[in-house]
Amino acid sequence: MGNVKRSDFNITEEVLRDPAEGEVVVKVLYISLDPAMRGWMNESKASYIPPVGIGEVMRALAVGRVVASGNPKFAVGDHVNGMLGVQEYAYSNGQGLTRIDPKLAPLPVYLSTLGMPGMTGYFGLLEVGQPLAGDTVVISGAAGAVGTVVGQIAKIKGARVVGIAGGAEKCRYLTEELGFDAAIDYKSEDVRAGLQKHCPDGINVFFDNVGGDILDAALAQLAHGARVVICGAISQYNNTTPIKGPANYLALMVKRATMKGVMVADYYPRAAEAAMVMAGWIGSGKLKTREDIVDGFNTFPDTFQMLFTGANNGKLVLKVAEA
Amino acid sequence: MGNVKRSDFNITEEVLRDPAEGEVVVKVLYISLDPAMRGWMNESKASYIPPVGIGEVMRALAVGRVVASGNPKFAVGDHVNGMLGVQEYAYSNGQGLTRIDPKLAPLPVYLSTLGMPGMTGYFGLLEVGQPLAGDTVVISGAAGAVGTVVGQIAKIKGARVVGIAGGAEKCRYLTEELGFDAAIDYKSEDVRAGLQKHCPDGINVFFDNVGGDILDAALAQLAHGARVVICGAISQYNNTTPIKGPANYLALMVKRATMKGVMVADYYPRAAEAAMVMAGWIGSGKLKTREDIVDGFNTFPDTFQMLFTGANNGKLVLKVAEA
Repeated sequence: MGNVKRSDFNITEEVLRDPAEGEVVVKVLYISLDPAMRGWMNESKASYIPPVGIGEVMRALAVGRVVASGNPKFAVGDHVNGMLGVQEYAYSNGQGLTRIDPKLAPLPVYLSTLGMPGMTGYFGLLEVGQPLAGDTVVISGAAGAVGTVVGQIAKIKGARVVGIAGGAEKCRYLTEELGFDAAIDYKSEDVRAGLQKHCPDGINVFFDNVGGDILDAALAQLAHGARVVICGAISQYNNTTPIKGPANYLALMVKRATMKGVMVADYYPRAAEAAMVMAGWIGSGKLKTREDIVDGFNTFPDTFQMLFTGANNGKLVLKVAEA
Repeated sequence: MGNVKRSDFNITEEVLRDPAEGEVVVKVLYISLDPAMRGWMNESKASYIPPVGIGEVMRALAVGRVVASGNPKFAVGDHVNGMLGVQEYAYSNGQGLTRIDPKLAPLPVYLSTLGMPGMTGYFGLLEVGQPLAGDTVVISGAAGAVGTVVGQIAKIKGARVVGIAGGAEKCRYLTEELGFDAAIDYKSEDVRAGLQKHCPDGINVFFDNVGGDILDAALAQLAHGARVVICGAISQYNNTTPIKGPANYLALMVKRATMKGVMVADYYPRAAEAAMVMAGWIGSGKLKTREDIVDGFNTFPDTFQMLFTGANNGKLVLKVAEA
């Protein structure tokens, strides 16, 4: 519970061994830092995957390069993407490991728009949120790795898009660089008043990464038949007190609205579809991607904490080694 | 805010006048007392209909008999059902007034299973909850007017049904008389433990009339792909503090579950369908209906309060006059 501290982690060293049969050794190059990782650190049965145990390698998505292979599917020099963990080298039996092409997009993009956050935004918006042209789509955590994808896809689909983010610079980025119709700075503005101003006909789709008071403000402004997509609750993950549930949830009744969660793992079988479509949008300039790359494996605990203070601009990635 | 008190109401007298053209005068016989009425007493923009203003007749569904008519659609002696208000005689222009047949079912049943609560249960369960045969359906406020209908229809559809109600007698009624598979007495049992015991494979449909801690307990026990039907939040209506939102709402994400409200008014165009189907079930003994009839117009404020202490057994109806 509470914020992650440096003392929550031990850095240990091991001598590399040759891969066993079927195994590959991957030199980790970039590690993805995601809010969901905070949940994996809690001892709880109620989550979607088991917590990371004390003494285990911290679970994390990462990209790297195969440096030794006992697996015929992977050759030395291949770049791969998978759950490699917070470590400089990883052993893998190849399960869940995907070969990626560094010529198609820079490696960190495979942890961002072409990775888990991008897929979360793509399927969460299109499959759960189901925006129609002309709908008003509101996103919390809008300047984050998921939020920026959601907002830009909503624009591509003809929706009006309002982002909620922390700080003038992030809001400027959303409206001036990503084409959002409006942005609300929750650090300096009243979110409820902002939503009333920018969503006079109500919110048709609310894509929530934040929870807490921002979720309540959005529920108070739903349009009839709205869809609320629960993707995360970053405002609540470090709580030492119980999670604050949405006091305005009865708006679901009054507004005939639906609240539904999105879990990206459900869409892994369609990952290639999402990557192909989004790579096309990236290529044509319709979908911009931004990574905030922090150098240095040993900075992990402090860099991870940036997610919760909102200090990162774009998808937070830890650089471990030169590609 | 807070509990309804006798001093919140004035009883006033007026001399009856003849109906104007198109108007009918109805002698009110039975008044429906429903939890939703508590919401109508709050000054709030956020509800689905405007609040009842200070000095206005308290809004209520009721059945009565036409005693004078200037409307060719209604004859003196007709029995009718509609929003007649908490009064002994009502004027109506006929809009929203339905003729009912006292030979088909006793008049109070038209405020219960063949009225608004029955329709709420029918459409809320079948259209929003969508139970499948073999599903586990859990209902809070299970012994109430809506809950008893939901549970019995779920049984008709082949589901396992677990009711949550207050007190041993209500629980006995659910299991022994209505055929529920199990009942949890929230006044003497730990609801979360009860749900774990009676729903080992999780809850597929949770039909919530109560909110608060009971909603949280149910969210903690959802099955994959569960549907949560928000019908009411009787535990929260008298709050003088903000409504307690469901702290466990992130279960919607983990369990790929959906939370959706039901508003019976959306289904008024299909009211005849529901009434016909349910009248058939009542006739064949599959659907039992129970009304708790309290005599005396002047008891209104105290009788109404029974809804919130759970003192009523069956649909609470205020008897105003002999049929």
